[in-house]
Amino acid sequence: MSIKYDVIVVGAGHAGVEAGLAASRKGLKTLMLTINLDSIAFMPCNPSVGGPAKGIVVREVDALGGQMAKVIDKTHIQMRLLNTGKGPAVRALRAQADKIKYQSEMKSVLEQQDHLDILQGMVDELLIENDTVYGVKTNIGTEYLADAVILTTGTFLRGEIILGDLKYSSGPNHQMPSIKLADQLKALDFEIVRFKTGTPPRVNSKSINYDETEIQPGDDEVRAFSYETTEYITDQLPCWLTYTNEETHKIIDDNLHRSAMYSGMIKGTGPRYCPSIEDKIVRFNDKPRHQIFLEPEGRDTQEVYVQGLSTSMPEDVQRDMLRTIPGLEQANMMRAGYAIEYDAIVPTQLWPSLETKTIHNLFTAGQINGTSGYEEAAGQGLVAGINAANKVLGKDPLILSRTDAYIGVLIDDLVTKGTNEPYRLLTSRAEHRLLLRHDNADLRLTELGYKEGLISDERYTQFNDKKQAIEDEKKRLSEIRIKPNEKTQAVIEQRGGTSLKDGILAIDLLKRPEMDYTSIVEILGEDIQLHKEVVEQVEIQTKYAGYIEKSIAQVNKIKRMEEKSIPHNIDYDAIHSLATEARDKLKTVKPINLAQAARISGVNPADISILLVYLEQGKIARVNNHE
Amino acid sequence: MSIKYDVIVVGAGHAGVEAGLAASRKGLKTLMLTINLDSIAFMPCNPSVGGPAKGIVVREVDALGGQMAKVIDKTHIQMRLLNTGKGPAVRALRAQADKIKYQSEMKSVLEQQDHLDILQGMVDELLIENDTVYGVKTNIGTEYLADAVILTTGTFLRGEIILGDLKYSSGPNHQMPSIKLADQLKALDFEIVRFKTGTPPRVNSKSINYDETEIQPGDDEVRAFSYETTEYITDQLPCWLTYTNEETHKIIDDNLHRSAMYSGMIKGTGPRYCPSIEDKIVRFNDKPRHQIFLEPEGRDTQEVYVQGLSTSMPEDVQRDMLRTIPGLEQANMMRAGYAIEYDAIVPTQLWPSLETKTIHNLFTAGQINGTSGYEEAAGQGLVAGINAANKVLGKDPLILSRTDAYIGVLIDDLVTKGTNEPYRLLTSRAEHRLLLRHDNADLRLTELGYKEGLISDERYTQFNDKKQAIEDEKKRLSEIRIKPNEKTQAVIEQRGGTSLKDGILAIDLLKRPEMDYTSIVEILGEDIQLHKEVVEQVEIQTKYAGYIEKSIAQVNKIKRMEEKSIPHNIDYDAIHSLATEARDKLKTVKPINLAQAARISGVNPADISILLVYLEQGKIARVNNHE
Repeated sequence: MSIKYDVIVVGAGHAGVEAGLAASRKGLKTLMLTINLDSIAFMPCNPSVGGPAKGIVVREVDALGGQMAKVIDKTHIQMRLLNTGKGPAVRALRAQADKIKYQSEMKSVLEQQDHLDILQGMVDELLIENDTVYGVKTNIGTEYLADAVILTTGTFLRGEIILGDLKYSSGPNHQMPSIKLADQLKALDFEIVRFKTGTPPRVNSKSINYDETEIQPGDDEVRAFSYETTEYITDQLPCWLTYTNEETHKIIDDNLHRSAMYSGMIKGTGPRYCPSIEDKIVRFNDKPRHQIFLEPEGRDTQEVYVQGLSTSMPEDVQRDMLRTIPGLEQANMMRAGYAIEYDAIVPTQLWPSLETKTIHNLFTAGQINGTSGYEEAAGQGLVAGINAANKVLGKDPLILSRTDAYIGVLIDDLVTKGTNEPYRLLTSRAEHRLLLRHDNADLRLTELGYKEGLISDERYTQFNDKKQAIEDEKKRLSEIRIKPNEKTQAVIEQRGGTSLKDGILAIDLLKRPEMDYTSIVEILGEDIQLHKEVVEQVEIQTKYAGYIEKSIAQVNKIKRMEEKSIPHNIDYDAIHSLATEARDKLKTVKPINLAQAARISGVNPADISILLVYLEQGKIARVNNHE
Repeated sequence: MSIKYDVIVVGAGHAGVEAGLAASRKGLKTLMLTINLDSIAFMPCNPSVGGPAKGIVVREVDALGGQMAKVIDKTHIQMRLLNTGKGPAVRALRAQADKIKYQSEMKSVLEQQDHLDILQGMVDELLIENDTVYGVKTNIGTEYLADAVILTTGTFLRGEIILGDLKYSSGPNHQMPSIKLADQLKALDFEIVRFKTGTPPRVNSKSINYDETEIQPGDDEVRAFSYETTEYITDQLPCWLTYTNEETHKIIDDNLHRSAMYSGMIKGTGPRYCPSIEDKIVRFNDKPRHQIFLEPEGRDTQEVYVQGLSTSMPEDVQRDMLRTIPGLEQANMMRAGYAIEYDAIVPTQLWPSLETKTIHNLFTAGQINGTSGYEEAAGQGLVAGINAANKVLGKDPLILSRTDAYIGVLIDDLVTKGTNEPYRLLTSRAEHRLLLRHDNADLRLTELGYKEGLISDERYTQFNDKKQAIEDEKKRLSEIRIKPNEKTQAVIEQRGGTSLKDGILAIDLLKRPEMDYTSIVEILGEDIQLHKEVVEQVEIQTKYAGYIEKSIAQVNKIKRMEEKSIPHNIDYDAIHSLATEARDKLKTVKPINLAQAARISGVNPADISILLVYLEQGKIARVNNHE
């Protein structure tokens, strides 16, 4: 009677959709179950995709064959490249999304995907035997069997809405929460934490006085997240900037006793980098004002997201707060802000493949792993989808290194260090961020995506052509010597540089801060039509060559440590000379290689040396590295 | 602290949106509260608007200044005029809707409406003092005050989903049901009935083999519901027709013991004219097959609605059923069908204004009044919105007569007879259906809509011009005598008619079944460019003049009885000669006039005579007819 799949994905948020697409695109018969088919890829929080670090993740998802980049490219209302004035390491795209269109487009992609079935249903139970998951059971008693299951439950696990001094069981927007599955995860002895996240109020555009705010338009130059996008949206909508003020802060201060946060009702830990406005007032009480961005939720709606005003203050206080903000004096609130508390599992219970350590073939991705953010969810969903499929296929998992991708940093942080608050990616979390750039996500990851079967032959050929063109041009420029003639000096002077004394290799002249590729071409008097992405790489790789080489040298050291893999079944108790704290931590985290072991807080260099010696003594040779 | 409105509408389904728009367009400060802002104007059932009788209601809603017609005109994927081969009385438009676009468009209209605030929130309680409602309280404790409240709760009041032998508390698509408000209505002594409705499974288009089905295209001629629509959608999508068969029926038969219907679990009464497939199999077990229409749910989705297969059989049985149907052998189910049970109030507790008799200023519309159907809901919502506003403004309510509109028939049926099953409009429910046509909804109701302030001056002028043009042309044709010359005979002969013996008035020639307006113009050799709607009216009014006059004569009798109004505070116990049954029924229904009294089952002509005499004796003269 039961229906058998290869992979089942529970949930269809930003993690779930990538997981379902990845598994089915790898040819596996996949089922996605979601509480409400009309909420696929729903954005319960801000209407935007990308931003610092996150935008790079979206590019990485694309380079690995994921979907998020393509969908936002088709459905945004505004696109900006951030930090263009700063170095290439911190540049990132950020798009304002049309929420309804984003959902509709993603649902349509899922519906048309081969090997993928989508079904509305609430999963109440994982089917488990011998510590191995073999399917799920829904709230109406139907069983679906599978060789692997991926949980992407978002904020639905025992979801509770908090508003003022009220707390009630609910998913977002009065959807049913998932209680029974949460109970089972507890019963399975997963260590559960209680996290919370929040959203700000939404207001009606017609009630905003935009004259009192500053316009924030999109970029004039059109850009895209996906390397495959060829059609660009030119008709962009602006956002608007305004600020809180002392009056706003006074209202919050005066009503702090009515806030859930200070009544002790909130058990969950909130996201440090996306605090509620009441948090901001309390923590930074000397700051006279906070930025508020007014972000349209789409082209066909008047709903406006009040970014920066995330709150769980009572509804009447929210109204009073709004009234104090320039431009929002008459604002008509359409949805009140609220906080939502939910169950997450402590992510050190996961392998870097995102499979749980205790239940075989069970994978988790997104907020259930303690993260926040659509992009963080998408990155994990993609990895979980690939690895669930690989597990079923008997293939090695895809483990992204911290030196390969922000997604690698994210997952390594989670499974190695855990997190005691909703985890958000930041550029500062990456040691090698000059390597993990927005512009080179394809160079870093397309090869891996192709190997996993998620990049088409056509795209792969294009990618290789691009790579070759970059190398060819760099080689060419390092073989051309530029003479200090009149034309050369004129171009250099025009750029504000000092004139040449001797001849110089073209590539060395390009390294000068004031020079760019166009100026070199001008000097050479050439009519070369290279793709702008090739030019960008030639420039960045040339100008930052010194820094990049230094980073690569460090990375190579790490790579060597990553090659020292640690078997899953290593017996740390047998390594007597390990410090007790190190032993305990190693037993918990179960690092898969020496590099990961070295990153565990409480595991010291001395412990790593002991571990290295132990591994090299071959005492545990010939044990199976794959369970 | 509380916010004060003139009118509050609870719910934003098809009743709620019309109510909110009508009240705010009448200049009243209106608040709409809905459980989920993303579910405004959601179609939980079939993706279509209109059809027999219902399509006429949509035209009536438009003529009275409502919104449904305009939105479906903008968002349909297919449009058909039904019964074009039959008389004008049964013609009706039917559109297939793009569900997501319909919602998005309606939400946008609401957002831009002056005097209207929209807010996400769940109403837990009506605020009542002295049997008069003065506001509502939400589940987060906020109070909103108002002079009138309209409940349009759909299937949310104590909603319970039924599937196989399972029953669980839920609104549609795992939304939270409304429990506390249901409890309060009971506590207020409203007589509550338990109704149920159901939906069929949805399947993925890519899994349908359309070769095994019959195509059902839209009309070639583009048409619109609204008299204001000027832009037409020409790109239409087809539907597809297939059938159940004995194998399907056997599967249902074999599993009847697993159906909720036969386990006694369903307490609610289902809609007779929209039965589940298991109902059809049981009730018409000699029928070898039933029609199944495959209806796309939109342009950008692959979801297909399996119209005709409404069911609450267990999920596995639904899959087995689908597999037996030609074209659906490989169908991939995306949502299972289900039944939903909900609370409705016995509608004889309402005045024809849709105000409740026991709680002043409380109005109800849509499924809460025991009806089914988006159109029935919209019609009631519009009337409730108008009348809540009129009550606040101290104006007379808009009471549509059975002779004015299908909406009048609908409301009169509800408040006079009640209903013991979900009520659906049918052409057979109207005694004067030759008057209540699709084509003359504007002629019947625009005047009323204008009087209520819901029709713009511009539209009203256009309407009067049209009316005048019809009258002018009828007059002109009744003054022109056509001679039996060669040309005349040729045209008549070409139409298959018998040649004229004598001269004849143009209007009389038009009455001949084979003649149409074009042929008359041809005979007259004229170059007249009348609007096609004017031509249509000239034709219909001329050809059906005899029947129409007869209907109007009957209607006038009824109108005279409607003029004999009965005061709200009449004491039926004082009219001794009334039969006991009649007295009881009259006390329950509290008819507002003699015509309504005469329609109450159990009130006989003799009772009406007694009542008439009593009223005319002036015994209760000078009592206030308006409470």
